[in-house]
Amino acid sequence: MDSFTIGIVAGTLTTISFIPQIIKIYKTKDAKDLSILMFLIFSLGVLLWLTYGIVIGELPIIIANCVTLFFIVVILAMKIRYR
Amino acid sequence: MDSFTIGIVAGTLTTISFIPQIIKIYKTKDAKDLSILMFLIFSLGVLLWLTYGIVIGELPIIIANCVTLFFIVVILAMKIRYR
Repeated sequence: MDSFTIGIVAGTLTTISFIPQIIKIYKTKDAKDLSILMFLIFSLGVLLWLTYGIVIGELPIIIANCVTLFFIVVILAMKIRYR
Repeated sequence: MDSFTIGIVAGTLTTISFIPQIIKIYKTKDAKDLSILMFLIFSLGVLLWLTYGIVIGELPIIIANCVTLFFIVVILAMKIRYR
């Protein structure tokens, strides 16, 4: 497997991993055990990983971090709604 | 800022982001709102990002994903303990 394929699979996994959390909060309307600080710091990190991907020109890093950032913002909004 | 520095800062942020979650679970002894599926899929993805970092020879990716994997395993263990 080449690095591009590994990166795409890795990015797909770390990205889709947030979907079960979104579904869980949506179903239970409860997010009190989630650390808002975790998602805030994580989103800042993802934004920098995205910058890193752009600088080194690695498309899997760019795509994965764009989608991850979207899901994290959704979770953050749900956390604020269902604290 | 060069890509190495951006990668190190990005990796530090996405890695340390899990510490507030570990502290929160430790304090409340409660992790029921956390999706175990999220952390399982995420850890598999991190393992592949680590592989990706090794293949393309990018040290920030390797270091960040090693430490992240450690924190995720801690959260997974706490989630199983305090479900």
